[in-house]
Amino acid sequence: MAGQVFIIDALQYSNWSEKIFREMRDAGVAAVHVTISYHEDFRETAENIISWNRRFSRFSDLITPGQSAADIRQARRDGKTAIVFGFQNAAPIEDDIGLVEVCYQLGCRFMQLSYNNQSLLATGCYETEDPGLTRMGRQVIREMNRVGMVVDTSHTASRSTLEAIECSDRPTAITHANPAFWHQALRNKTNDVLKALAESGGMLGLSLYPHHLKDGSKCSLINFCEMVAKTADIMGVSQLGFGSDLCQDQPDTVVEWMRNGTWTNDIDFGEGSKTEAGFPDQPIWFQGNSGFKNIIQGLRGIGFSEKEISLIAGENWLNFFDLNFKPNAA
Amino acid sequence: MAGQVFIIDALQYSNWSEKIFREMRDAGVAAVHVTISYHEDFRETAENIISWNRRFSRFSDLITPGQSAADIRQARRDGKTAIVFGFQNAAPIEDDIGLVEVCYQLGCRFMQLSYNNQSLLATGCYETEDPGLTRMGRQVIREMNRVGMVVDTSHTASRSTLEAIECSDRPTAITHANPAFWHQALRNKTNDVLKALAESGGMLGLSLYPHHLKDGSKCSLINFCEMVAKTADIMGVSQLGFGSDLCQDQPDTVVEWMRNGTWTNDIDFGEGSKTEAGFPDQPIWFQGNSGFKNIIQGLRGIGFSEKEISLIAGENWLNFFDLNFKPNAA
Repeated sequence: MAGQVFIIDALQYSNWSEKIFREMRDAGVAAVHVTISYHEDFRETAENIISWNRRFSRFSDLITPGQSAADIRQARRDGKTAIVFGFQNAAPIEDDIGLVEVCYQLGCRFMQLSYNNQSLLATGCYETEDPGLTRMGRQVIREMNRVGMVVDTSHTASRSTLEAIECSDRPTAITHANPAFWHQALRNKTNDVLKALAESGGMLGLSLYPHHLKDGSKCSLINFCEMVAKTADIMGVSQLGFGSDLCQDQPDTVVEWMRNGTWTNDIDFGEGSKTEAGFPDQPIWFQGNSGFKNIIQGLRGIGFSEKEISLIAGENWLNFFDLNFKPNAA
Repeated sequence: MAGQVFIIDALQYSNWSEKIFREMRDAGVAAVHVTISYHEDFRETAENIISWNRRFSRFSDLITPGQSAADIRQARRDGKTAIVFGFQNAAPIEDDIGLVEVCYQLGCRFMQLSYNNQSLLATGCYETEDPGLTRMGRQVIREMNRVGMVVDTSHTASRSTLEAIECSDRPTAITHANPAFWHQALRNKTNDVLKALAESGGMLGLSLYPHHLKDGSKCSLINFCEMVAKTADIMGVSQLGFGSDLCQDQPDTVVEWMRNGTWTNDIDFGEGSKTEAGFPDQPIWFQGNSGFKNIIQGLRGIGFSEKEISLIAGENWLNFFDLNFKPNAA
């Protein structure tokens, strides 16, 4: 592992390859939370886990399963990247609360309560109305607390997010989003949400996805870093990390599928539009994992201390994993 | 078929047997809408259809598939009961709008948008909040309209029901419920809903399930028939039929499963309570299909004409099936 600062990225959904795994290692990325499922049901999710099991075997010199903070510390020592599994929607547990524990047993450590639409648990940020958590949602959050699966509300609507923070006995996470004060978007989060998240011990993973950035693909590094400083003023430096939302080497058909799954006969453009339907271009200073060093340099440049940079880059997430990836002692 | 008046019952979920099929035939029941699925996903729904295919083969002298009004007329001529398939929840289509047409091809003619809880489409009547139709719900209603699958909102919450009536280009149904003016219950329907339903050409199936009846199991026949008269004043006689919600010969484990499925770790008692958790006793005048003759006698007794009785007993539903079980011409 190069240097003392290590990186944890709390969201990537790349078109996985040896090239990307090498880039992760070379960039000092100790762990990545990878999306295992968007719309996949339990059986399809198992198929995606099979694919990861094969990658772990084939690229065992580069990646290793990350189911605990200890796994990630070991990965650092071994110069590998630990892969943490998570779901961007509740689809894998279908309508079965018993699947929460089964998915935990299969390695899943994060589950979003909803993607852009209403789920059986909570409302997504693209619905017109947000009635908060459902009856099943309250049951499932309690079960996630019990087994040690982190509630992720990245794509969840505001009221549902606030109710999830309130309902959850353990800290929750917004693994990949930015503050709405900086860039207004349905996916970015209000100050109310950010404050409630921080007060509950929750984490925000700062996103590098252009639709979440001020000025989109043209966002400047310094502007991004200044946003990080302002967000730290609201949430505290200890509640921030990275959650790049990097979708490296993915064809545009993938973002179409993310948005449309099988739920609609019309075409939903999500954060995009008819004329810009595909993946947006990444900013020049974050084209992939090697871009983290630019951000660290940028944070240094606007006055973050080395200690603060270490926290944001990886230590905050590692501490969070330490506390929240284990079954509840209670 | 005994007599001129034929019966169509727009909801039963009995523990199916030759005994029950004989009772149906002897009672002049030309068609029954039977529940194929509550919580079952598509694959499990297919398994239930396999069971019905076997019953159609084994009891071909008593029952026959009912996929159109013509099937029901033929069943009448043959002295059989036509079996119309329906779902009490959107679980069988999972998150896949394409399964609407596939389920229609398998014979499904009714689908409830939600059972007691929030679904991917709409809110159930036991949720605290009702935000109306979801994004997927609006898409699916349009698809149901296209293929000829009737939107059923029996267990759907009020706002979601009103929005479904508004959103649907074709008449919708509440296959099994009673008016709340008569007996206040989360499952019974407000006058606003009944009026909107009637104005759109929709149908109400009057329920004989004790939790939907004034005085429960002790409800009197005359009290029930007077409710029918008052409901006809609100909706018009042509928008009323039967939807008994009869769950004959079912063990109490079935109602526990209906309420709890796999969504909760706590026990949900639904319309029951901890001390009365099982199926309630049917009123003495409606213990099964043979009870329809008592209701017809009761309706006659309070002044309904023979023509009106024929409409309510079966002709209204048959007319509704004629119009709404076919793909949309548009």
